[in-house]
Amino acid sequence: MVLAHKLQVAVSGLGRMGQRHALHFLEHTPRASLVAACDPFPASREWAEQHLAPYGVKIYADFDEMLQHEGLEAVIVATPTTFHAEQSIKAINADKHVLCEKPLSISVEVSQTVVDAAKKRPHLKVMCGFSRRFDASYRDAFSQLENIGQASVIRSQTCDKHDPSGVFVNYAQHSGGLFVDCNIHDIDLIHWFLGAGSRVKSISAAGITAVAPGLAQWHDVDNGVGIIEFWGGKIAYVYGSRMMAAGQHDMTEIIGTKGKLVVGGAPQMNFLEVHEATGIRRTIPDSYYGRFREAFITEANEFTQCCLDDRELPYTIDEAVQALVVGAALQESVRTGRKLYFDELGNKVDHPGTIV
Amino acid sequence: MVLAHKLQVAVSGLGRMGQRHALHFLEHTPRASLVAACDPFPASREWAEQHLAPYGVKIYADFDEMLQHEGLEAVIVATPTTFHAEQSIKAINADKHVLCEKPLSISVEVSQTVVDAAKKRPHLKVMCGFSRRFDASYRDAFSQLENIGQASVIRSQTCDKHDPSGVFVNYAQHSGGLFVDCNIHDIDLIHWFLGAGSRVKSISAAGITAVAPGLAQWHDVDNGVGIIEFWGGKIAYVYGSRMMAAGQHDMTEIIGTKGKLVVGGAPQMNFLEVHEATGIRRTIPDSYYGRFREAFITEANEFTQCCLDDRELPYTIDEAVQALVVGAALQESVRTGRKLYFDELGNKVDHPGTIV
Amino acid sequence: MVLAHKLQVAVSGLGRMGQRHALHFLEHTPRASLVAACDPFPASREWAEQHLAPYGVKIYADFDEMLQHEGLEAVIVATPTTFHAEQSIKAINADKHVLCEKPLSISVEVSQTVVDAAKKRPHLKVMCGFSRRFDASYRDAFSQLENIGQASVIRSQTCDKHDPSGVFVNYAQHSGGLFVDCNIHDIDLIHWFLGAGSRVKSISAAGITAVAPGLAQWHDVDNGVGIIEFWGGKIAYVYGSRMMAAGQHDMTEIIGTKGKLVVGGAPQMNFLEVHEATGIRRTIPDSYYGRFREAFITEANEFTQCCLDDRELPYTIDEAVQALVVGAALQESVRTGRKLYFDELGNKVDHPGTIV
Amino acid sequence: MVLAHKLQVAVSGLGRMGQRHALHFLEHTPRASLVAACDPFPASREWAEQHLAPYGVKIYADFDEMLQHEGLEAVIVATPTTFHAEQSIKAINADKHVLCEKPLSISVEVSQTVVDAAKKRPHLKVMCGFSRRFDASYRDAFSQLENIGQASVIRSQTCDKHDPSGVFVNYAQHSGGLFVDCNIHDIDLIHWFLGAGSRVKSISAAGITAVAPGLAQWHDVDNGVGIIEFWGGKIAYVYGSRMMAAGQHDMTEIIGTKGKLVVGGAPQMNFLEVHEATGIRRTIPDSYYGRFREAFITEANEFTQCCLDDRELPYTIDEAVQALVVGAALQESVRTGRKLYFDELGNKVDHPGTIV
Repeated sequence: MVLAHKLQVAVSGLGRMGQRHALHFLEHTPRASLVAACDPFPASREWAEQHLAPYGVKIYADFDEMLQHEGLEAVIVATPTTFHAEQSIKAINADKHVLCEKPLSISVEVSQTVVDAAKKRPHLKVMCGFSRRFDASYRDAFSQLENIGQASVIRSQTCDKHDPSGVFVNYAQHSGGLFVDCNIHDIDLIHWFLGAGSRVKSISAAGITAVAPGLAQWHDVDNGVGIIEFWGGKIAYVYGSRMMAAGQHDMTEIIGTKGKLVVGGAPQMNFLEVHEATGIRRTIPDSYYGRFREAFITEANEFTQCCLDDRELPYTIDEAVQALVVGAALQESVRTGRKLYFDELGNKVDHPGTIV
Repeated sequence: MVLAHKLQVAVSGLGRMGQRHALHFLEHTPRASLVAACDPFPASREWAEQHLAPYGVKIYADFDEMLQHEGLEAVIVATPTTFHAEQSIKAINADKHVLCEKPLSISVEVSQTVVDAAKKRPHLKVMCGFSRRFDASYRDAFSQLENIGQASVIRSQTCDKHDPSGVFVNYAQHSGGLFVDCNIHDIDLIHWFLGAGSRVKSISAAGITAVAPGLAQWHDVDNGVGIIEFWGGKIAYVYGSRMMAAGQHDMTEIIGTKGKLVVGGAPQMNFLEVHEATGIRRTIPDSYYGRFREAFITEANEFTQCCLDDRELPYTIDEAVQALVVGAALQESVRTGRKLYFDELGNKVDHPGTIV
Repeated sequence: MVLAHKLQVAVSGLGRMGQRHALHFLEHTPRASLVAACDPFPASREWAEQHLAPYGVKIYADFDEMLQHEGLEAVIVATPTTFHAEQSIKAINADKHVLCEKPLSISVEVSQTVVDAAKKRPHLKVMCGFSRRFDASYRDAFSQLENIGQASVIRSQTCDKHDPSGVFVNYAQHSGGLFVDCNIHDIDLIHWFLGAGSRVKSISAAGITAVAPGLAQWHDVDNGVGIIEFWGGKIAYVYGSRMMAAGQHDMTEIIGTKGKLVVGGAPQMNFLEVHEATGIRRTIPDSYYGRFREAFITEANEFTQCCLDDRELPYTIDEAVQALVVGAALQESVRTGRKLYFDELGNKVDHPGTIV
Repeated sequence: MVLAHKLQVAVSGLGRMGQRHALHFLEHTPRASLVAACDPFPASREWAEQHLAPYGVKIYADFDEMLQHEGLEAVIVATPTTFHAEQSIKAINADKHVLCEKPLSISVEVSQTVVDAAKKRPHLKVMCGFSRRFDASYRDAFSQLENIGQASVIRSQTCDKHDPSGVFVNYAQHSGGLFVDCNIHDIDLIHWFLGAGSRVKSISAAGITAVAPGLAQWHDVDNGVGIIEFWGGKIAYVYGSRMMAAGQHDMTEIIGTKGKLVVGGAPQMNFLEVHEATGIRRTIPDSYYGRFREAFITEANEFTQCCLDDRELPYTIDEAVQALVVGAALQESVRTGRKLYFDELGNKVDHPGTIV
């Protein structure tokens, strides 16, 4: 019997998330075969020699060299954001499928270049990794969307556990800011649940630096709130934070004219509750990975399936740019203190007159 | 033995909430004695003849006449909002303590006249009824405020069950709008938890009419979201809705630098859960009264205690005006589509420059 | 207008629960008038002089004397259990309605004498206070009983917060034991939900002394588990404990052929959850009163209503004896280590042969 | 570089659970390589040809033949229970590691023969698959056991969703009965949390046939409750059911002198809650696999690791026999209606005298 062909995959970038992607493809994506991985840092490659090489994965220092790996079919870009677009485009041009971590770039223009490159090779699968799209709870919610009438208001938050080391302050220099780095997930979910064609009418946001005043130097905040108004009578509002004490708490409410879908309203690490003298206590995950590990694995498997079977991806690469446009506008609104207005074509305009 | 003196109380307005106030003072406020009640509508007086008169309560058609009731010490104003300020001022001038339902008025200026009248008679207790201030859960949260570091972000919502009769559309003509009618509670809570001296820096809101397009004629909305930015690096955001399918869901999160207090995150009618073929189900109250009945009773008892024992009220009558100022500004922001800015003295200003 | 007649009520026994009963009738039972209270202990009477007398309540040291209080119509017996039956019977014979705290006695025979006395004066309302019968959640469950098919298995627990003072060890000398003192509530609920005519087929229980070895001298336990098998293919099982760390946790599951009703599965003090470094925490009440205060007030009001309007009580006084029969059998099973068997008439029998 | 050696695994039995085991080893156990699978039924082999063979798995009809597969190191026995012991012993004698589905047999004696065979080849890893031992929530509970003082009372339940097809009636003929088939998991957990050396003092159980009267012919029940009393002052009680309406609900409480650990008290399918006109609803899994899939995968990985690295298994094969002894005694108690007593050596005795 002929053995099933497995998608030949390489991972670029072996930082924390890159390592996880590599292991997902190595261990939990039965139809894929991790054949290569690269990282310019020796320490990362050392990790790879230990954890990947024993299973036949070739380790590279150089991305371009890895692109030439014989039989390579797909590349996972998990580098720092600065390199996302460049490497994605190189991979596309080398005729590889691409799964790129979010965001494509912190620049809308640069993000668009990835889309442009992908458009030229429509036979390739090019996907931006919005992990929550693959989460079982969010998918269950989406499958029940028709039961809540017209989805009209969405609230969504991405709230990180506070890291007292403050490492995220330096990170903020290149992250694009809280709304681009964290709430990009919420924005993508909003587009998903309201429909990809939703057009923004106005954006207004506010932010503070409550635990990390150093963020001010990068015009970033550690807590931010934003309202996104859409043409057609729909509203979304988002909250991002780096300040949670108990752990990661990402959640979303989709509020329709006849019901409401709540994902993650009552977070929990697992099914244990501890009754003790101070009350009843449960824990929640420390990070997004603790909440969304299964979604990342599903992402790896579905991306693999789309590549192997030439199926349509669950969402288009354009949507990643749309999410970034909104994230960048929220960031601008925080930075300038101004409300931004858009016409129905997406052009920035002055105040368009009364709304109601 | 000399019997304990009971506060001699009258209730003005015997609509739904007035009836409840009357019964709270009649049945659940041991140190008060309900002695009178008035309403211009015969049907309301008929209810009173049946439910109050048999316990010795005198029923009046005319408010001014009731004010002359011998021995009367305190008046509960539970009329439509239009009469709140006028009757409160009359009662103050007749040297009665006053508990007035929220809001004092939908006009900031008119509200201030109540405060001015009260200031002239400092021996009187004049209180605006913000029921959540008396709720056990909110009070428990307040008592633990010091455990969460610096309270920095507050989210609060007042969401009514959708009433398909649409009665709230006509009601909107005089309600002051969603933010003044509903979110006034949230705004008051925000002031409570952030400190009464908090000064608003900017306000931005958006709203839609998803289930009640008729609201547009009154420049009102059935779903509204607002951001209130405070001087000193704090943010609050509120959501109001007339569109909930399952019932009333009012809730508040107070997010500090070291922890978070969540009130009402997981609403429930009572302690019953039903396991059935479609899953596990619980119900929630139909209205705010189902959630806050006990708080209203506590309100009646504490107001009585303050009057009888000349104790300080738990919050001042000025705070009711402060809440209204914010509610009216949110309403203006929705109506005009504009973001509003304030200087540190509370004056409206043009855009004050960048924030971060 | 003729003022409404109020039921003239006296409370006997002003310990912790007696005080609460007195205040419920004084403050929260609008159709009742607390006119008298008695307790042989000076300290209790001192409390009464301070809290009850100022509202016109006459304080007695002697029960018999109080029974002669002019116009007295109903007596609440809230003394130590030892006096429940005697005082109830005296009150009945003096032609007073009686609400007696549970249990009527720790002796089945003595309990029956109360029933016998009550039977002779059928115009009187004689009720044993099973507070959970008046709890909103339990009543909601009962109202939905028909939705779960045939109720077939019941689990119910009464679990007290551990009191490290160990005061309950001495108390155990006269309490009748854990199953009679605590689980009597669960047994009564089981009869309520399975039907008052349910006949016990077998009883088997086990217990330990994990935190209070001193209980052994009274043949009592601090944790006990029992199975009650009924003729007709139904089972109940109960758990009682004096050892909870977090607080009181009383709960019940009614499991039917088509669904399940769970009361109190997720206990909570109020609607606050605290997010802190160690996780998400909520508190639960310290005692049964924190959980069932509203039920006690409803009990007072409904008892009053039944007396005034000559309505049928929600359950008969016989049911209190039935519950005690089961509680005493559970206690015997723990003490002897033996399983007990009953025929369909309720007579103890030897092992009746195989069951399935 | 030398590639890492992977454990060469075969799965015997490709029914529902066997298929899952096969896929876990094929897709989610990176250090194992599924090399063979067998089933006497053509339909099962057809499934295997389609899902396993394309990945290099050899499909056999005959177990003995499969045992000869070159390089085979470990066998997963997932056949009907009737064949568990026989195949496990054959595999042991062929010098293969064995992971056998629970129970080893419905006969205590037959189970012991597996243990005896394993004892003769101590270099082999022979494990009975108690999936909950590998569940993250149960493990979290176990890691916190020291925080609750002395674990003294355990409640544990295994409750299946009602299958109206009644297929479980025929299945009951060979399942060993509800306590052996379902509650064996609870019994194993009780041994885990109370300590493997815990000695049973008495056992008492009761059961009914509420939805499947046909079970009576096999002396089985569809709902059963049992109390297991241990020497040393500890108690466990279990509930098993085939009658749940909403789905699978397995849960456990470990109650200590200073706290309580609750696993699965508030079951849920995922993180979605639906707010709709009838209330707030969540779903729960249809079967144990929906709840414990991750645990099965962890089981596969840890078994593999123990085999490859010659590590100690997390629990011994003897414990599977101990659990069966208790399960069979519960079953006997239901069947005979009698309470069973044991001395400290585990011998059945007559009633040993009073307990407290």
